[in-house]
Amino acid sequence: MSTTPGAALQPQRTIEELKELRALTGDAEGAQRVAFTDTWVTARSWMREKLAQLPVEVEIDAAGNQWATLRGTSDKELLIGGHIDSVPNGGWLDGCLNVLAGLEVLRRIAAEGTPPVTVRLVDWADEEGARFGRSLFGSSAASGNFDPEDLAELKDKDGITLPDALKRVGIDLYTARRASEQLKNAAAYLELHIEQGPVLESMELPLGVVLGTFGVERYRIIWKGQAAHSGSTPMDKRRDALAGAAKMALEIRDIARRAGNGAVCTSGGVVCRPGIVTSVVETAEQLLDQRHLDPDTLAQMLQDAKDASARFAKEEKIDVTWERIWNIEPIPFHPDLIELCDQAILETCGVSHRLPSGPLHDAAEVCRAGVPTIMLFVQSLRGISHNKIEDTKEAHIALSVEALDRLASKAIDWIVAQG
Amino acid sequence: MSTTPGAALQPQRTIEELKELRALTGDAEGAQRVAFTDTWVTARSWMREKLAQLPVEVEIDAAGNQWATLRGTSDKELLIGGHIDSVPNGGWLDGCLNVLAGLEVLRRIAAEGTPPVTVRLVDWADEEGARFGRSLFGSSAASGNFDPEDLAELKDKDGITLPDALKRVGIDLYTARRASEQLKNAAAYLELHIEQGPVLESMELPLGVVLGTFGVERYRIIWKGQAAHSGSTPMDKRRDALAGAAKMALEIRDIARRAGNGAVCTSGGVVCRPGIVTSVVETAEQLLDQRHLDPDTLAQMLQDAKDASARFAKEEKIDVTWERIWNIEPIPFHPDLIELCDQAILETCGVSHRLPSGPLHDAAEVCRAGVPTIMLFVQSLRGISHNKIEDTKEAHIALSVEALDRLASKAIDWIVAQG
Repeated sequence: MSTTPGAALQPQRTIEELKELRALTGDAEGAQRVAFTDTWVTARSWMREKLAQLPVEVEIDAAGNQWATLRGTSDKELLIGGHIDSVPNGGWLDGCLNVLAGLEVLRRIAAEGTPPVTVRLVDWADEEGARFGRSLFGSSAASGNFDPEDLAELKDKDGITLPDALKRVGIDLYTARRASEQLKNAAAYLELHIEQGPVLESMELPLGVVLGTFGVERYRIIWKGQAAHSGSTPMDKRRDALAGAAKMALEIRDIARRAGNGAVCTSGGVVCRPGIVTSVVETAEQLLDQRHLDPDTLAQMLQDAKDASARFAKEEKIDVTWERIWNIEPIPFHPDLIELCDQAILETCGVSHRLPSGPLHDAAEVCRAGVPTIMLFVQSLRGISHNKIEDTKEAHIALSVEALDRLASKAIDWIVAQG
Repeated sequence: MSTTPGAALQPQRTIEELKELRALTGDAEGAQRVAFTDTWVTARSWMREKLAQLPVEVEIDAAGNQWATLRGTSDKELLIGGHIDSVPNGGWLDGCLNVLAGLEVLRRIAAEGTPPVTVRLVDWADEEGARFGRSLFGSSAASGNFDPEDLAELKDKDGITLPDALKRVGIDLYTARRASEQLKNAAAYLELHIEQGPVLESMELPLGVVLGTFGVERYRIIWKGQAAHSGSTPMDKRRDALAGAAKMALEIRDIARRAGNGAVCTSGGVVCRPGIVTSVVETAEQLLDQRHLDPDTLAQMLQDAKDASARFAKEEKIDVTWERIWNIEPIPFHPDLIELCDQAILETCGVSHRLPSGPLHDAAEVCRAGVPTIMLFVQSLRGISHNKIEDTKEAHIALSVEALDRLASKAIDWIVAQG
């Protein structure tokens, strides 16, 4: 057995396989590997052909996650994860880079003989949630943050229910939580992902260590004023719901600035009623999304927004109510693994950077399940994803495979050292 | 022949007839006299029965306007107008008060014998434009601000074209402009209308003199930024289209305040794209409506808004373009008739007020055709119209009939004095 880590690693092969997968499962509009569709089934079958050339056991768990297990000396497991599913008209890297880079790392480790710990590659089912609006399906089934009753009523745009779509590919919604058995020996989880944002590109850095995923507070703010004729209602007699939403759309920038440390606040839209040119706006429904890595700061950002809304409502003589759409706490990754990832990146390209992840990832679910977790990001061009023009320089893709490989070696050593 | 003006006037009869019309052509949701429908035909037929009891000639002109002519000593004509058509689920006063008050005035004048000038009551066809989106149909055909080619393609929500709907009630779109012959002897035009705004109510005044109708500039402002992920895009890397629209929604209040004299600016709505909670707004389409009675001030208001939009676009690193939806110049009413109307109101209730009209009215079209024109407003409760809860105190309705009658007498004298 060779003891030279990385000797067999061929990052160029990952790039070729990404292109092979694109040709097999994409079209002129981009990637079409939407979870639970025939194209997704094709992609996973293609992946199993690749895995068949390695000394690994392949299984699909109760939630549809596809696992490849390389048995090691110890039952303790290093997990490397990703998702082969895409959004409709998606990019060529989002999710599948993670899986194919993991495949290459698995090849390198397998080539060296029996590893000291068991190494497993997982392709999570339906990370994107593009079809049913519920992301992180497979990883949340494994983490236990999953209630079948909440999901049973979900339908796609053609009216097909999630349970029926799952049944078609051999998954039973009500037993999917059994996937949590897959994590019982997990000692560390690694995930590589494209950044999907502009930070690394703007700093001209290929790779970054992810500190954790942002906590998110997501609300619908409903401003209620009085519809009134645009021509006959003097300015001082108006109760304009849009004025509240407008003030809030501007105020959230100050709230984010005050919070600092990468805080983001977004008003993704305002729906006005009656929404006609001849009437003052009676109701404005405003979307608000706030994110931060620190839970106390996030709570303060939300409170600041609520306080401001009450002030604006008073100023404008309108009413305001808040409806929570969704929230999740910040999920910080493991401090030891952050250091190891930093080292792996420094050894790969000489410069590293630590940043939070705005988007959620399967890694967040694994981390919530108590598994020491880390992610690394590779630069995205123009910060664009979920679109066929999503791209990353091939040289950076190659560096990301190398860094993941170095991180895997360090993580195995770290698991062993934990005893 | 009696020479006591107003002797035969019975304002209470107008209130009873308004209720009679409501019972005949309304339902639990309000008035249903949408122009060119069967209910509208019924309302006009009911009106002709009333007119049949007077020594008047009734005719329907080429645009569907219904005229009742009481021949006078002179061919010069005093016109009194209104519209019996309503919006769907409309109020019990909007438009038909004008016609029925005019009927009562006509009765009073007819009871006194042959008047010194010819007096005509006109019920304009489709003032509201509720069905085809084109208001002031009949009065614009008479004024000449009417191009059949522009109207030929209009359809209602059932796909019926305007020409077909007109044909059904005996009107030919392409000859409708012949209605302009009706104005050739017109020496003055009077119109009573509910205010449809809160000004008179807030001043606790029953009646007001209308100075003219506001000029209107109506635009769609299109802000274009960059869609970007709500989680992964730092605040300083965003190009948020909603920020431009928000700044403008607030700025227009200052623009209106600076313009003064009743200036109003309204942003009736903003449509955001993609309009989802996970994305910065790429495109925000904002409606803007600006109104003023003075053309130079209105032009300045528009320029101020355009200048501000360019400033906001620069600040937010977004693009802005303006698309004109519609505009009309301010239409000031006749100075002599303003004075006469003021006197009529003072004699009726002891206190008057002068105010511009935000909404357009048939009077604006008649005025544009060069006929000396005046309107008077009666107080609206809560400023609400185009809704079944539209209302005016009955005592105020009675005062409005009296004031219109006094104004008619003064206008006849004024026409005679013009020689």
